[in-house]
Amino acid sequence: MIETPSLVDQYCHGVLRTELGLGTFEAHLGRGEGPPAPGTTFFDTQTGFAVRRWCPPLLGLEPHCPPARYLARRRELGVVEAGRRLLRGSGITTYLVDTGLADDLTGPAELASAAQSEAHEIVRLELLAEQVADTSGTVDSFLANLAESVHAAASGAVAFTSVAGVRHGLALDPQPPGPGEVRGAAGRWLAGRQVGGALTDPVLLRHLLWIAIASGRPLQLRCGTIDQAVHTDPVSLVEFARATAGLGTDVVLLHGYPYHRHAAHLAGVFPHVYADLGPALARTGTRAAGLLAEFLELAPFGKLLFSTGARGLPELHVVGARLFRQALGRVLGEWVADGAWSLSDAQRVAGMIAAGTARRVYGLGGA
Amino acid sequence: MIETPSLVDQYCHGVLRTELGLGTFEAHLGRGEGPPAPGTTFFDTQTGFAVRRWCPPLLGLEPHCPPARYLARRRELGVVEAGRRLLRGSGITTYLVDTGLADDLTGPAELASAAQSEAHEIVRLELLAEQVADTSGTVDSFLANLAESVHAAASGAVAFTSVAGVRHGLALDPQPPGPGEVRGAAGRWLAGRQVGGALTDPVLLRHLLWIAIASGRPLQLRCGTIDQAVHTDPVSLVEFARATAGLGTDVVLLHGYPYHRHAAHLAGVFPHVYADLGPALARTGTRAAGLLAEFLELAPFGKLLFSTGARGLPELHVVGARLFRQALGRVLGEWVADGAWSLSDAQRVAGMIAAGTARRVYGLGGA
Amino acid sequence: MIETPSLVDQYCHGVLRTELGLGTFEAHLGRGEGPPAPGTTFFDTQTGFAVRRWCPPLLGLEPHCPPARYLARRRELGVVEAGRRLLRGSGITTYLVDTGLADDLTGPAELASAAQSEAHEIVRLELLAEQVADTSGTVDSFLANLAESVHAAASGAVAFTSVAGVRHGLALDPQPPGPGEVRGAAGRWLAGRQVGGALTDPVLLRHLLWIAIASGRPLQLRCGTIDQAVHTDPVSLVEFARATAGLGTDVVLLHGYPYHRHAAHLAGVFPHVYADLGPALARTGTRAAGLLAEFLELAPFGKLLFSTGARGLPELHVVGARLFRQALGRVLGEWVADGAWSLSDAQRVAGMIAAGTARRVYGLGGA
Repeated sequence: MIETPSLVDQYCHGVLRTELGLGTFEAHLGRGEGPPAPGTTFFDTQTGFAVRRWCPPLLGLEPHCPPARYLARRRELGVVEAGRRLLRGSGITTYLVDTGLADDLTGPAELASAAQSEAHEIVRLELLAEQVADTSGTVDSFLANLAESVHAAASGAVAFTSVAGVRHGLALDPQPPGPGEVRGAAGRWLAGRQVGGALTDPVLLRHLLWIAIASGRPLQLRCGTIDQAVHTDPVSLVEFARATAGLGTDVVLLHGYPYHRHAAHLAGVFPHVYADLGPALARTGTRAAGLLAEFLELAPFGKLLFSTGARGLPELHVVGARLFRQALGRVLGEWVADGAWSLSDAQRVAGMIAAGTARRVYGLGGA
Repeated sequence: MIETPSLVDQYCHGVLRTELGLGTFEAHLGRGEGPPAPGTTFFDTQTGFAVRRWCPPLLGLEPHCPPARYLARRRELGVVEAGRRLLRGSGITTYLVDTGLADDLTGPAELASAAQSEAHEIVRLELLAEQVADTSGTVDSFLANLAESVHAAASGAVAFTSVAGVRHGLALDPQPPGPGEVRGAAGRWLAGRQVGGALTDPVLLRHLLWIAIASGRPLQLRCGTIDQAVHTDPVSLVEFARATAGLGTDVVLLHGYPYHRHAAHLAGVFPHVYADLGPALARTGTRAAGLLAEFLELAPFGKLLFSTGARGLPELHVVGARLFRQALGRVLGEWVADGAWSLSDAQRVAGMIAAGTARRVYGLGGA
Repeated sequence: MIETPSLVDQYCHGVLRTELGLGTFEAHLGRGEGPPAPGTTFFDTQTGFAVRRWCPPLLGLEPHCPPARYLARRRELGVVEAGRRLLRGSGITTYLVDTGLADDLTGPAELASAAQSEAHEIVRLELLAEQVADTSGTVDSFLANLAESVHAAASGAVAFTSVAGVRHGLALDPQPPGPGEVRGAAGRWLAGRQVGGALTDPVLLRHLLWIAIASGRPLQLRCGTIDQAVHTDPVSLVEFARATAGLGTDVVLLHGYPYHRHAAHLAGVFPHVYADLGPALARTGTRAAGLLAEFLELAPFGKLLFSTGARGLPELHVVGARLFRQALGRVLGEWVADGAWSLSDAQRVAGMIAAGTARRVYGLGGA
């Protein structure tokens, strides 16, 4: 009843280019700091079951067929052809791709070609800063190059993202650090750093986030616990949200689960704050409808954004898209059937969350 | 199947006396620190959709009619007549009204008259203290007048409430401050204060809350995040709850969401602690039944209290009451249909939550 | 449709041996720090309603009969016979029993006999340390005896458990304390202690937990808020989980509610971490299915363990088992009916959670 003709995946990664065996495929279904426990498998998770439900039919197999059979068929088609069939079967028309991972994944252009879709780049701020550090000789040149790199990236990318910024930076202090503080931190970091060394200095992270805010491109910040054991309650972002209100740059809260109700609340409090549905729906399988309903408690309907958060396996793009579409249809459909919402309102809200709000926030056109 | 013949709204505010245009009406649907984001409207929220569902029929229109049409009809009737029709259509028979807002809203008597119902006053402690400060010359007279004012208010009001007390006071220290500490804090606050200046001093807030506890009137404390970006987990109240146990004064936790499960838990741990269902249901529209079910997990059924938390718009009183009644009927009705609860138990529990417990706690008679 | 032929209750206590009146029975339905509020009763809780639903038929009465009638019938049969009928009607085939309570409850052997089932002991570390302190003259002998006692207990018990360890120990520091630190803490504790004095010293608690980890027996740690007003977010255990990863000892998170989603998440992040469904289901009555669904969002299906957490009343073992079985059947049954899961997968997952995973983790055989 509720139709979502097009999907904009507002946060995902590319896919692997190599053939995968059962074990390497399984490893990409987990989110942990180790292998599955002895006697268990990551196929026995909501993600594993969802992959087995939605993906085999796209490769000509029965839903819920055994993992080994699915992997055999995947290898028979080859990683390129299997990836094409999966991505083209996902229903996603535009991918926004975080390219800041060390893994060898397809970039936006290659993903767009495989998926016969549009794709745009999201630039990860930490990686940008690390690349600048690798090629800058002095503190002065590092800081000048950093500002210029963020500025240059802003013209080509649809958004910036930061994984460490909230936990190691903003949760401690929301304000931009002063110039002397930044120079001191940069000096210490550069002096102690090997080529490729990661950026976790709180002063530099805050400096970087504030440069990004000044660029005007939407800034995606990771909160919540999915994909990392330590959590960051989005409420720790309140002061940063307050400090950046009215500057004209939107802030998108990624990965709110299990603090998604807090993230949705903040999206209602601050005009420039948005909340991502991403992994909260894509990683919880049969529970996606329940979680979508929780997001819809306090978030204004124009402040929620669909994504898959997929990484490495095109199966995860498929699963994220299918679960979202089904959840949206069920939740809104039930409210319409109940008389609580009108059908036209529900259609309109579905269109916003699936694509319209992302088109507006990221300036994608067609909004 | 489940009937709730009467509703006691245990926490709300009065309504505006002025005619409202589309923009001013919309502003009262939001809960944020700014206007709606560009390209969005506060009508696209659970509150907005619920108003459009429940209120147009009370003014002779179709449910879900466009906001502009509803506002035109509202102005056609006039704010007084529209308010009467809405309040009388809400099903609420008794309103407990927090009068401590700066806005020019109807007081208890005017609300009672418009609604053809009973109404009683809830006194906001911070406002009381500020009024006493405005008229007291010295620290000694301030402290004496404060104690007397709380005592006098206790004889006319049904309850005290505090908005800042938990966040700025009890979360730091649950115990009553000593006399010297109070005199010092009062001296500093009075010396630095302009007429009308707000009370946020943690020592004076704690002092005030402990005077209120001594009065014996129920004390309503705001927790949770609704209506403010910064949250106060009700668990920060554990030590205050422990310190006030057995003193004979009830404590009611307001605004628990998204910590409502914690609030419900505390209501089960401490005999004198109660939890308000208020905005958690009234602000989440189609999700009210889901939230009521979560409250009912750990809270003893005699420790939950209905309210609307409505403020400014009589539409919010209507929506809060309708959503509660529908949620109660669905949740308990389903459990009865399932054989998990007997019908007579469900009826009894519905009556407690809707009115009976409030009648007992606030001494309203008819319990 | 979903069958769970056998249930292993991975965490419970024994039952009382004395006849109970209405008031003493009611007291065991509460979880609080005081009696029920005036005008309320602990029978008006999810636990009370669940007891009235499931237990009367096992004693030959109608479901939902009045409490007084149920108690009269219970006394007519006598505590022994009523206990037998209830325990044998629970469907539990193996009980793991925490024997570390001061109350005079049946031990594993007596419970096994009454229930015609298997039972094994869980040793509570704090009690073990207190018993060692009662009989050790010096710091040296205390520390030597402590190590030996844990070692000896490990050969007879299926697991260790700690109630205070997370809140007073690990949340502060996850690492094992150094020998000098331990000696100092032991000296201070023994010097200031009366016979029977409780262990709350954070250094000794951490020392004790690390001895237990070295024993290789699974370690059950209490988190969450049920049964205590102060909460411990399982996320405070992240560093301890990281420090104990790869050592070969499993850690089971007890009592996660209302942080059960966090507990489930940690069970997905760390191979050796498991989450208990226990009181989150057993204490929430008609809401058990909703809570089970939330656990199943992020937890790998082989990392969740059924328990009743029952204590004192065999009615609580019955209720915990019935609510779990019904919730499992409903949640998984719905997902199968929806095509999201295959029936054979659902059966397999049900068997894991009900018994299989506990058999594997605790080495019970028959896994």
